[in-house]
Amino acid sequence: MEIRNNTYTLRKCKFIVNYDKVIEDKNIIIQDNFIKDIGEETEGDEIDCSKYVVIPGIVNAHTHTPMIILRGYYDDAELPVWLEKMWQFEKKYQLEAMNLSSELAILEMLSKGTTAFVDMYFNPDGIRELSRKYGIRAYAGYTFLDSLFEPYEIDMKQRQLREDNLFKPIINVHSVYATSINTLKLARQLSEEQNTWVHIHVSETRREIYEIKKKYGKFPVELLHEFNLTKNSQLVHLGWIASWEINYVNHATHCPTSNMKLATAGFFPFREMLERGLNVTIGTDGPASNNSLDMFREMKNAVLLQRHSYWDTSIKAYHVFKAATEEGYKLIGVKGGRVEKGYIADLVLIRKDPLYPLRKDRILSNIVYNSVGEYVEKVIVNGKIVYDEDKLITFNKRREELLKLLDKVIP
Amino acid sequence: MEIRNNTYTLRKCKFIVNYDKVIEDKNIIIQDNFIKDIGEETEGDEIDCSKYVVIPGIVNAHTHTPMIILRGYYDDAELPVWLEKMWQFEKKYQLEAMNLSSELAILEMLSKGTTAFVDMYFNPDGIRELSRKYGIRAYAGYTFLDSLFEPYEIDMKQRQLREDNLFKPIINVHSVYATSINTLKLARQLSEEQNTWVHIHVSETRREIYEIKKKYGKFPVELLHEFNLTKNSQLVHLGWIASWEINYVNHATHCPTSNMKLATAGFFPFREMLERGLNVTIGTDGPASNNSLDMFREMKNAVLLQRHSYWDTSIKAYHVFKAATEEGYKLIGVKGGRVEKGYIADLVLIRKDPLYPLRKDRILSNIVYNSVGEYVEKVIVNGKIVYDEDKLITFNKRREELLKLLDKVIP
Repeated sequence: MEIRNNTYTLRKCKFIVNYDKVIEDKNIIIQDNFIKDIGEETEGDEIDCSKYVVIPGIVNAHTHTPMIILRGYYDDAELPVWLEKMWQFEKKYQLEAMNLSSELAILEMLSKGTTAFVDMYFNPDGIRELSRKYGIRAYAGYTFLDSLFEPYEIDMKQRQLREDNLFKPIINVHSVYATSINTLKLARQLSEEQNTWVHIHVSETRREIYEIKKKYGKFPVELLHEFNLTKNSQLVHLGWIASWEINYVNHATHCPTSNMKLATAGFFPFREMLERGLNVTIGTDGPASNNSLDMFREMKNAVLLQRHSYWDTSIKAYHVFKAATEEGYKLIGVKGGRVEKGYIADLVLIRKDPLYPLRKDRILSNIVYNSVGEYVEKVIVNGKIVYDEDKLITFNKRREELLKLLDKVIP
Repeated sequence: MEIRNNTYTLRKCKFIVNYDKVIEDKNIIIQDNFIKDIGEETEGDEIDCSKYVVIPGIVNAHTHTPMIILRGYYDDAELPVWLEKMWQFEKKYQLEAMNLSSELAILEMLSKGTTAFVDMYFNPDGIRELSRKYGIRAYAGYTFLDSLFEPYEIDMKQRQLREDNLFKPIINVHSVYATSINTLKLARQLSEEQNTWVHIHVSETRREIYEIKKKYGKFPVELLHEFNLTKNSQLVHLGWIASWEINYVNHATHCPTSNMKLATAGFFPFREMLERGLNVTIGTDGPASNNSLDMFREMKNAVLLQRHSYWDTSIKAYHVFKAATEEGYKLIGVKGGRVEKGYIADLVLIRKDPLYPLRKDRILSNIVYNSVGEYVEKVIVNGKIVYDEDKLITFNKRREELLKLLDKVIP
C-alpha cells in the first residue's frame, strides 16, 4: 500500500529481530527518518506486517559494484592471476558502463535486504546519483591504485566529490602492494581533510605478507600503523594478519566467501577481534570473486569459515548478524542497525511463510543459517519504502534494459 | 501447460548444461521416462523453454529429512554435544511426525531442483509413500544405531521393506562408533541379500578417529575395510580420513556446510579422490546441521571449502556440478545426471532472467557460484513434471497444513 504521510505504522510485526533480542506481534511507528516507537500504539497509515519478520537494515561493508560485469569472467584462478585479469579489463572499462553495472548490482542488493554498502571502485559520482535514485546508503570514492591511475589524478577527483543525503565519500586505497608510501600519505591527508575513513585491502594473501615484509621490513598492518593509517581505517580481509597486529586494528571487514573462492586461505581472527571490542563487519566483496551479493549467505559463510578455522563453535549466528547490522551502521557512522526507538528507520521485512520452524527462539538461526535473502519482500531506508512488490516490477524492467545496454561491453 | 501424452518437447531451451558441455537453443524431446532426442526436431506437446536454462536432475546424496523439525534446535554446539541433543529428542520422535517432517523437506528439496535423495533415518516406509506421492527418487532404510534400537529389530524391519518405482531400500548404518562389529556384519549381509549399498557416516571427527583407533587398533575406514564394508558402501564425511585409507574407498560423499557448521574441521580429500577415479557425491546433510536443503548452495560451499583447504583453485565449478549430477546418478545406479539422448528424463529448468551475465561460457559458473536454487521453476523426474508453478500453489497449501500438524511436536 502507499504511504501518504511522514508517519506510518508497521502493524503487528510477527517478529522484530535484533541480534540480542526478539519480540513478537508489536507495532513499529516510523516518523520521518526514525523509529518513533515500538509497542501497541499505531499512528498514520498502517501496513499489516503479521506475515513479516522485521530485521534491521544490512550493511554490505565491502564490495565493488561495477564488477558485476565480470561475474564469472575468470572464476577458477588464484588471486594474483585473477587480479591481473581484472586489471586488464579495468584499464579499458568506461565510466558509463561502470555506472550501468553499479545500477544492476544495486537492484540486486536492495532486493536482498542490503540498505547500505561500501564500494571500492572508480565511479563514486555515479554511485552518488544511484544512491539518490534508489534510496540506498552508499559510501564510495575514487580508488588509489598506482599502476592504473596517477595518484594526483585520484586526489584531484576525490576533492571534487560531494556528500549527498545518503551518500558519503570515503578514501579508497587498493592495497599497500599496489600503491606507494606517498600515496598512502596522500590518502591519510585526504581522509583527515574530508573527515572520512580510509578503506583498504590488507593482508589478504601470503604473497602480500612476504612482499611487503621484504620491501619495507614490516608486515602490512604494521606498515599502515607506522603511517598512522590504522586508527580511522577500515581494513578488509586480514586473513594473514599477525596476532600482534590485531592491537593496531579498529575497523575490520571479513569477506569469507571471496577469501575461500580465491583460495587465499589464512584466518580472519574474528574471535580475538571481538574480545578486543573491535568494530567487525562483513562484506560480500565484488561479484567477480563471490559471486553473489546476498549478505544473508555471507553471514552464514562467515560462521562456517570461522568454525572450520577455530575447530569450535565460538562464533555463533548472533555474532555475524550483529556484524552485518549494528556493527555495519557503526562503521558508516549512522545510528541504525537496530530495530529500536530512536534509531534510524532502515528495516528489512522478510516473509515468514517459508521459514520453518517459525519460533521466537529459532528465528535468528533461521535468518542466518537458512539464508533468507530470497524471501525479502520490503526494504525501508531512512523511513522510505525503497523496495517492495511494486518496485520489483520496476526493478525487473530496468534490469532488462541494463542487460541490453551492458551486453556490448561484457569481456 | 498440461502435457497430454507420453512424448513432449522442451522447445528452444536457452541453454542445456552438462558439466562438460553447454549447448544453446535446442529442443529436448522426452518420451516416457527418457530423453529421446536433443536437436532441432519437436514431437508431441511443446513447452516453450526459451526462458529456461536446463540442467540435469540433482542428487542430494546425504540427508536426514525428518530432522527438519530440529532445524535451529541446537545450532551452536560442536558435534558430540549436538548429537546427544538430537538423540534425546529422537528417542521420543513418533513415526507419524517423522513422515510429516519428511514431507516438508521433500517439498523444499523439489522446489530447489533436487530430483533424488539418499536419506538416513527411521521412516523408510513413509519415504517410499512420499516418493510415490511427489514423484521424487528416494533411497532410504532403517538405520542401525545400537544405542537407540536393537539391531535385530532394524534387521527385521529392513527385510520387510519393499522397492517401489522411484524408491529403493538402502542399508543405513549410523557409524562405527554407534554400532557394534556384529551390527556391521549384519549390515553387510543385508546389503548383499537386498542387492543394495551401505550408507554410513565415517571419519567425521578427530574424536571418532581417536576412539575407534583406541578400541579396535584401526582407523574407521580401515576397520570397515577389514569387514568388507568399503567396496559397496557410501562413506559420508571423511574429513579425517588418512591418506592411505583413500585406497579403500569407492563411494564418498562430501557435506561441506554441515562439517563447517559443526566445527568438525578436517579435510575431505576431494582432489585425491578424483585422481583415483572414485565416485564422489555431495549432500546437504540434515536440516539440523546445515540448515538449508539447497544443493546449489552446497555445490558452491564444496568449492569454497576445498579451495580454502588446498590453498589453491584445483577444485572448480564443473567438479562439484558433476558430483551433484552425474556422480549422484552413478551412486543411485540410474542412467541420469546428464541432459543427453538415451538418459533418463530427470531435469531442472531454471529461469534465465535473474542470471547475469547470461552467457554460454559463464552459465556453469553462474549456476554454481550464484547458487540459483531460488530460480528453479520446473522439475522433471522420470519424464513427468513433478514441480512447476501449479504445483507451487499445491505445495504451499500442503506446507501450511504440515506446519500446523507439526507445531505440537517441535522440541
